Amino acid sequence: MTIKNLSPSMFIGVAGKGIISFGSGQPDLPPPKEVYDILPTFKAFKYGLIQGQVHLREALAKQYPTSTADSFVVTNGASEALDLSLRVLSKFGNKSNKVLLPRPYYYSYPYSVKFAGMEPVYTDLVEGRIDFADFAEKVVDCKAVIINSPSNPTGRVESIQTLKRIEKLTSDLGVYVISDEVYKDLIYVRGNYLIQGPHVVTINSFSKTYAMCGFRVGHLWSLDQDFVNNVIQMKTHTSMNTNILGQEMAYEATKVPRSFIDNQLRIWKQRRDLIYEGLSDLGLDLWKPEGAFYVLPKVKNSLDFVWNMFKRYKVITYLGKWFGTENRVRFSYALDSEKIEEGLKRVGKYLNKN
Amino acid sequence: MTIKNLSPSMFIGVAGKGIISFGSGQPDLPPPKEVYDILPTFKAFKYGLIQGQVHLREALAKQYPTSTADSFVVTNGASEALDLSLRVLSKFGNKSNKVLLPRPYYYSYPYSVKFAGMEPVYTDLVEGRIDFADFAEKVVDCKAVIINSPSNPTGRVESIQTLKRIEKLTSDLGVYVISDEVYKDLIYVRGNYLIQGPHVVTINSFSKTYAMCGFRVGHLWSLDQDFVNNVIQMKTHTSMNTNILGQEMAYEATKVPRSFIDNQLRIWKQRRDLIYEGLSDLGLDLWKPEGAFYVLPKVKNSLDFVWNMFKRYKVITYLGKWFGTENRVRFSYALDSEKIEEGLKRVGKYLNKN
Repeated sequence: MTIKNLSPSMFIGVAGKGIISFGSGQPDLPPPKEVYDILPTFKAFKYGLIQGQVHLREALAKQYPTSTADSFVVTNGASEALDLSLRVLSKFGNKSNKVLLPRPYYYSYPYSVKFAGMEPVYTDLVEGRIDFADFAEKVVDCKAVIINSPSNPTGRVESIQTLKRIEKLTSDLGVYVISDEVYKDLIYVRGNYLIQGPHVVTINSFSKTYAMCGFRVGHLWSLDQDFVNNVIQMKTHTSMNTNILGQEMAYEATKVPRSFIDNQLRIWKQRRDLIYEGLSDLGLDLWKPEGAFYVLPKVKNSLDFVWNMFKRYKVITYLGKWFGTENRVRFSYALDSEKIEEGLKRVGKYLNKN
Repeated sequence: MTIKNLSPSMFIGVAGKGIISFGSGQPDLPPPKEVYDILPTFKAFKYGLIQGQVHLREALAKQYPTSTADSFVVTNGASEALDLSLRVLSKFGNKSNKVLLPRPYYYSYPYSVKFAGMEPVYTDLVEGRIDFADFAEKVVDCKAVIINSPSNPTGRVESIQTLKRIEKLTSDLGVYVISDEVYKDLIYVRGNYLIQGPHVVTINSFSKTYAMCGFRVGHLWSLDQDFVNNVIQMKTHTSMNTNILGQEMAYEATKVPRSFIDNQLRIWKQRRDLIYEGLSDLGLDLWKPEGAFYVLPKVKNSLDFVWNMFKRYKVITYLGKWFGTENRVRFSYALDSEKIEEGLKRVGKYLNKN
């Protein structure tokens, strides 16, 4: 690892004595114990349905309005749902192949768009949220837009008014909306607002709500049956069914009482307050997180910050540039309060010296 | 389901009272019991390495010559390994985007090639095996070729001489070889010959050898580190790590003694003999399977055959057309002898009436 070739994937799985990682965006608290309860007696081994196990899709359908199991595809995490969606949309219609991305963005988006043979274009967020005027101007030329509220990496939640305006405008224009709602259960300021319409593809996952990152179970939801069928057809040839055991574990998670999520949310909120106040007290300029578990403070010489914090202070942070923004770094606060406090101390030491 | 929209995916998971399925290509015999032994105590949940768990890749490296864990990527089955390989190769070099496919082919190949933005071209098999003269003529214009020995759907195994000639010619021409060897442990006539060279990508899976289809654990192997790194980078954004529990189960499978495979092979060979002799006795023209678990007999009016065998006789077979060949149907013999015999009886009844 050198300062020149730093990338987020280099930090994945990096751990060790004394390292404090504000890096990877994955819950540290375990999944509900119920998801493990089915393991001792599990004996299946054959292919499952490409679209996903029926009972899991039926359980998901209960969470979405006017929906049946037909409207879902269970995928290898939200990542595959996004990849398949973009690859299918790239072949749809004859409009431009541009996909609008609010910036800063989740670092995979530009890659996913390009890997699908499409072209990313950007609308810059203001105070971490969509500037609707700029959005409206740029979306006209696009085939699709990716919305990510709550946002990784800004931690911001779009206003319901903005989401409704986006819903209407994209519907009028015939622009597809890919709504990545993987943090929908981690909102501190209101309930989730589900963007709807036949032009909407909603992406979700068991990774954040139920801490099941490693099992890679996500799904997409769309009321456009032609789109769903195209996704299934593509998945038939690109990965087949999602791991059958992962799907059963996910199904168990759908049965866990809401209190599991509420209890987790309380913990996330405490951590949010701790890191937000801690970094503010250190004099950093940052947006108050309203959802997800990230903060994106401004720092001088962000590359030096990330490099030195890791090399000299054993603290992993992610460079803003990976998310399309300069002079900022991303902290994931998916770690316990004690470690957050220790990490904040080390950041303070670095800032005092630089 | 109508005769006009018949497709293999419509038969996946179709089962029921009295149905005999020669359709889907998946083992009916269970995985080694050892792969389930780890389930009761499994507690992990975090992301794994995108490339795959180190101990699994180290175990795989022992099965390949001059290899280390770095040469492997663990994937969501062989399907994703193929998809990622083609997508990465489509961006490599400046040669044509043609991919040569021996025909009849595994039905996903043309889709996979097209989904990766490349163009499939074909070399027709002779007696179910590669015609090297035709292969040599057509491969010149190609960027890559997919080799599948033992072959799904022909059940044939290429001669070592042919494989060596392909190895040399493609190396001389700088054409990539994607060698899909998922049936390498199911060969009745000789040991597997591993095609080698820095231009070779070998694809394999735990689905056939260890009957782990539903868990979707495959891998690719390549000595071209640049290619491997590109695959990892793409997987980072398109699906992330392969299910961590599936990988642990696969790792357990690597430790199972060779006798497990030998015992399975004995059963496959008995079934091969049963169906080959049975269909021959019914007067059908077919190639003797040398590997995998498929036969591809000629039949008159193959569409009527597949349709009526299913609708009137509850026997699932796959249409040759799906594999790029007319007037043939594919039988998978991944079912027990009793069912094979019952299925043969029903085929006999149909043939006598038509």
